Formats: sequence, C-alpha cells, structure tokens
Amino acid sequence: MNTFDFLKPLIRKTDSKIVLFVCDGLGGLPKNGKTELETANTPSMDELASRSELGQLIPVIPGITPGSGPGHLGLFGYDPVEYQIGRGVLSALGVEFPIQPGDLGVRINFATLDADGNVADRRAGRIPTEENIRLLEKLKQIEMPEVEIHLLTEKEYRAVLVLRCAGLSSDLTDRDPQVTGVPPKVMKPNSSAAEKSAVLLNAFAERATEILKEEQANTVLMRGFAVYEPLPTFEEVYGLNAAAIASYPMYRGLGKLVGMSTFAVEGSLAEEIDQIEKIWDEYDFFFVHFKYTDSTGEDGDFDAKVKRTEEADRAVSRILDLGPDVLAITGDHSTPSNMMSHSWHPIPILVHSKNGRHKTVSGFGETECSMGTFGTIQTKELMPLLLAHADKLNKFGA
Amino acid sequence: MNTFDFLKPLIRKTDSKIVLFVCDGLGGLPKNGKTELETANTPSMDELASRSELGQLIPVIPGITPGSGPGHLGLFGYDPVEYQIGRGVLSALGVEFPIQPGDLGVRINFATLDADGNVADRRAGRIPTEENIRLLEKLKQIEMPEVEIHLLTEKEYRAVLVLRCAGLSSDLTDRDPQVTGVPPKVMKPNSSAAEKSAVLLNAFAERATEILKEEQANTVLMRGFAVYEPLPTFEEVYGLNAAAIASYPMYRGLGKLVGMSTFAVEGSLAEEIDQIEKIWDEYDFFFVHFKYTDSTGEDGDFDAKVKRTEEADRAVSRILDLGPDVLAITGDHSTPSNMMSHSWHPIPILVHSKNGRHKTVSGFGETECSMGTFGTIQTKELMPLLLAHADKLNKFGA
Repeated sequence: MNTFDFLKPLIRKTDSKIVLFVCDGLGGLPKNGKTELETANTPSMDELASRSELGQLIPVIPGITPGSGPGHLGLFGYDPVEYQIGRGVLSALGVEFPIQPGDLGVRINFATLDADGNVADRRAGRIPTEENIRLLEKLKQIEMPEVEIHLLTEKEYRAVLVLRCAGLSSDLTDRDPQVTGVPPKVMKPNSSAAEKSAVLLNAFAERATEILKEEQANTVLMRGFAVYEPLPTFEEVYGLNAAAIASYPMYRGLGKLVGMSTFAVEGSLAEEIDQIEKIWDEYDFFFVHFKYTDSTGEDGDFDAKVKRTEEADRAVSRILDLGPDVLAITGDHSTPSNMMSHSWHPIPILVHSKNGRHKTVSGFGETECSMGTFGTIQTKELMPLLLAHADKLNKFGA
Repeated sequence: MNTFDFLKPLIRKTDSKIVLFVCDGLGGLPKNGKTELETANTPSMDELASRSELGQLIPVIPGITPGSGPGHLGLFGYDPVEYQIGRGVLSALGVEFPIQPGDLGVRINFATLDADGNVADRRAGRIPTEENIRLLEKLKQIEMPEVEIHLLTEKEYRAVLVLRCAGLSSDLTDRDPQVTGVPPKVMKPNSSAAEKSAVLLNAFAERATEILKEEQANTVLMRGFAVYEPLPTFEEVYGLNAAAIASYPMYRGLGKLVGMSTFAVEGSLAEEIDQIEKIWDEYDFFFVHFKYTDSTGEDGDFDAKVKRTEEADRAVSRILDLGPDVLAITGDHSTPSNMMSHSWHPIPILVHSKNGRHKTVSGFGETECSMGTFGTIQTKELMPLLLAHADKLNKFGA
C-alpha cells in the first residue's frame, strides 16, 4: 500500500508546529576521531540531544549517494526512487523558473566545435556567466510555431531550455556525446511519444549552431530531458500548510514542488530565522535550508565546515525560542570534507518534542546518532515520525 | 514475494518450544531519565538481558500508533497493513463471539433521538451495562428471513451486531452521523456487493428504533462494518501448534484469528502461568498476554505501570523453569504513562535462546534495547527470528 494512501485516513489537523532544519550535507567522516559535527562547538544542539530522539537516516538505500533532489524529496516523505525529478526540471527550479506541468526542461552546455564539426570542448572553455547571458540573448530569436521557448542562464557554460506546448516527452537520446572528437549526436526518440520533442530539439540545436557560428561557444549540447509532472502536495498528503525558507533558489524550488509557500532570503542563516519569525503564525510546517555545511564539505575544507556547523548551532536557540512543538535537525545527505562530495553515509537526525524517548548522550553527532532511540531508518520514513511527535496522527486500527 | 510463501519451504518441524510473552503496551517514555520498564525492579529480566538478544520493534512503520489488532497481528508475523481486521470483527472477538467466515460484524452505539428525530446524544447518556443487556434482550425479537442475527453487549452504550448469511459486505456508509443535531444516516452501499447488507441493516435499525421508542436509548447507531475473512493459520504458515493464554477475550480472539487454541484465565498473570504449565506438553508455541502494563499506562499511572512490570518480571522465572527453547518478552506497542495512550515508539524486545548473540548490558529497558544486537526492526519481522532461534528454519538456498 502506498504510504500516502495509508496515512491519509490517519491525518489529524492540530495547531502544533513543526520545524525541519536542514543543514545541507550535515553528515561527515572522522578526522582525528571526530567528524565535523562532533568537532564543532555546538552547545545548543548538544544540550538538546539528551532531551531528544537521535538516530540516523539512510537517504535512499544503503550505499546510494543522492543528489539534492532525491535527498530533499526523501526528507519530505516522497520515496526518491518512485518520485524522480529529472535534471532539466531541477535546473529550471534552480533558476526560479515558474515551471508548469507538461513543460520539458533540458540541460544545456555551451560547447565548442572544431572546423570538422567535432566537439573540441564540451564546456566552451568554461565561458563566464556574463558571456552565457549574452549568448542566450542571441538565441532568444529562435521561434517555433505553437511552442513557447524559455532560455535561462545557470552559471558559466550551463543553461536551461524549457519548451512549453502539448505532447512533450523526455524519452529521447542526448545530443551531448560526453566525449570530444566526435560530432554532437542527433537526438532520437526512444518511443513514438517523444517524436515531437526530438524534432523540436534537433531544430533548436541546428538553429542555435547557425546563430553562434562566429562565437567561441559555437554550439549547444543537450541532455537531462525531464517533463515536469506535479507531485501531491504537503496539504494533500499531510494536511500541512508549509513554508520553505532558503537562500538558494533550488531548495525553494524543491519546496515549491511539494506545494510549500516559498520565502527567498538573500543573506545569512540569521536572516532566514528572521523570516521564520515573521511568518510563524501563518504556517504549521517550516522547512529551513542552510547551504554552507554542504558547500564547505564539497570544498574539502573540514575547518570551514566545522565553522558553518557552529553557525547552524547558533540558529537553533533562536528556533527554540519560537516554541515549535517539533524541531528536527538533519541533512539531506552527508558531505564528508575528505571526500569533497555528497556521500551515502547515513545522516544524523535529532528530533525534539514533548513526546520523545531519549537518553543521556555526549552531544549531537554521528556516533551518538548511530546508537540513538530512532535506530537507523530511511529518510522517507521521517515525515510520519514528525507528524506523530506533533500529535498529528490518529491511531491505526482498533 | 509474500513472506509466508518464502518461509513455507524453509519450515522445519522440531520439538522445540517458543514462548511469546506479550506485556501489552510495554514500551514507555522516561520520567526523571528512566522509563517505567527501566524504573521497575525486574531482577529476572535484567539478569536474562545479558544472556539474550535485545532490540526494538517498530509496530507498523515509524510514527504509526497501532491499535491492539494491528499490534498483535504484527507480533504474529502478519503484515498489519495487509491484514486489516475491521472494528466490527474485533468487537465480536472481544466478546468471545464465535465468528465465522462471511459474518458481518457491526459496532453499535445505543443513542438518543430528540422529538424531531435528530441525534441528541450519541451515547444515550452512557447507559450502564445492565441497561445495555436489557435493551438487547428486547431487540432479540427482530427476525429476518434467512438471516441469523446475533446481538452482544460490550460495555455501557456499546454493543455488537453480527449478521450471518450469504452475500454480506462491509462496503457501505455509516448510520452514525458522528455529530448531534442531525438524524441518523441511511446506510448506503458503495458497491453493488453491499446492497443486501444495506437493506438488512437499514431494516434492522428501523425495527430497533420502533421497539426502543419509549426508552431513553431510543435508537442504535451503526459503524465499523467488517466481514470476517479467515487468515492463514499458525499451523499453515509456520507449522506451529499454538496456544493463546489470556485473561481478556479480545486477545484470545486475536490468537483464534490465526488458529491458536485459546485458554481463558479469569484471574492473575500467575494463573496464566499455571495454565501454561498444564498444557506445556501439548503445544510448541505459547502466546501469553498480560494486559495491565497497558491499562496502567492508559490510566497515566507511571508508578502502577512500574508495579505491573514487576509483576510481569515475577512470571519470567516461572516461564524459564519450564525450559522453553526460546523466550521472547515484548509488547504489542508502547503505552507511555505520560501520554495516557498507545504510541508509535518502538517496543523493547528480549529474545533468549541457546543461539543468541549478546553482550553485557545493565538490564532490560528501552535504552539498552535501542543499542541491542537485533537493531531496530519491524514487529512483523520477529516471527522468523523466533523460528530461527528455535531451530525451526532450514537454510535458504544452496
């Protein structure tokens, strides 16, 4: 039985409030016996740990390293294997494009072809973002009958193309050959449903190559095709009126995917907490995203990740001051500094509520979490637990 | 693959004996750092713990609080989401009605209608049980061609109606409007299979209202429709000849659902153990149910739950004296005193056998169990473990 169908008759509306504080990439690996989280001076989280349930979350299945999309969908209770959000859609969300059901999102690389038409550089010498913007402006002259074409700059050589019309499909082969020395590939439909998409995209690529012929970036490579299919919303599946507070558009986009109201914050984590304070009375679920525990891990900077974790800790006491009924602190995946990448390691989780089972621990960290009262569960199993801790679930069966 | 189908070819019949000692609602939450189980003076269980496997059981999925039905079905190895036993059937089991496959069980509330025919009190002023018995006697005059009608008192305003004939279905809407100030609803079939049931139940309600018109409880409300479909038995799925020993009829009924022989014990837990001693040679699986760790928790009486846990501990040494090959001590769910209700928290489990992996622990309690050798597993996963510890499972594959 589908978990959402199972939960539906059990959902109880109450006034209680849940805060899900996601420190991106929170989990780490030990250096001199301690992880980044264990090394950081985190008095608020450590004090809270002995009054909270601890455990560890497996993002997908053991051994699988998730991207931000599956990492967050799991946290939101959506099975990341069942609900796969394609790259093209995620990229569109990442630039805050208001994507609509049926839209086809496509990842674009500006690239360089040599005189023979073979790919010489898949990233066109990593052109700067301003150059990307200038080139996209030129491509905006491309028109096709009865198709809306949207072109959006991501960063450097990366852009997003969104096609909007009826009958689009993502079931086609890439234009990007993934290697140099060969020509870009003709995109081919894998099924008849994708014939229209293939015709449109091949025509777009041809026109773009013509327009760009005098440029260093003289073609576009395409991949990551994804048609946006709307997900059931937080209101529909949990009866929750949810808000997403994040400084990076991608994470607001992920919240929007599941029907959250989104709040952009330009600056620091402290400003994100300011924002929660402003809207505290209007929502019953708050997804708060902190990016820098991940980006410092990806930079391979153990000490910087420690510092960012300490910044996260300072936000915790301010969140507690708001009096949430449930506060969960976790990540969407681990990002160990020494791996300089996302990883598959379970993510430490702390859940504080009046209904918690707990024990005295040394603090909030991977080692304590591996022996926590929650045990080791899957990320997608977290949401029903948060609802239970917030008294938002009725008993199952007599 | 269905777990039962998977297990079937692995089942090995042996003389070994398994005791599943269910202390209802065993798990709790800490008060001054210790749960009821951790506070209780339980020398037998504590001594056993270092020679046993410990772990924690998630009753359904994380966050889901089960009723007694799903809680026990899980312990018996039946996926509680797949095998849902409706309220009407559970109520019939609870009054020891010998329900048969195809019977339709219905929960009845005696209720009061005002002069306009609107529900004034859904519980008829919580009439005493004796009044319930008297009124049911009057209703027993209702007859319908080719239908057996059984009426059974539960308690106060609650009763059970069982219809027996061919072609019954539970797929219809309630008569109980759940609110006052409106008339009872006409029961309507949701599918053609339930047309006959709707006709019979509406006719019954009409006749009952006529018969009761001079009473304070002048109508009956109906809900919780459930047709009894027999489950595969313990003998069929595990090759076990099982006995259920319980003082409350509902739990014997749950044992009977899975084909256990049932033994009613009027009095204390000590008398339940007397009963096991009498039948020790005749069965190879004993489900022993102790109610009062749950009812004291539901009363919100931490100290009383502690005392009842100590009573359970005294039974343990007597069970051990019988020389079971496997002794499992656990609950069907947690009932923390401070929540005064069932809860979703994992249930501590202890399994003692000659085949156990174990470590030195401080005793049997939630904290030690959260770090136990079993880890955190689902309740429905317990039965194969018990069979394995009892040498009742062959190797899977070559």
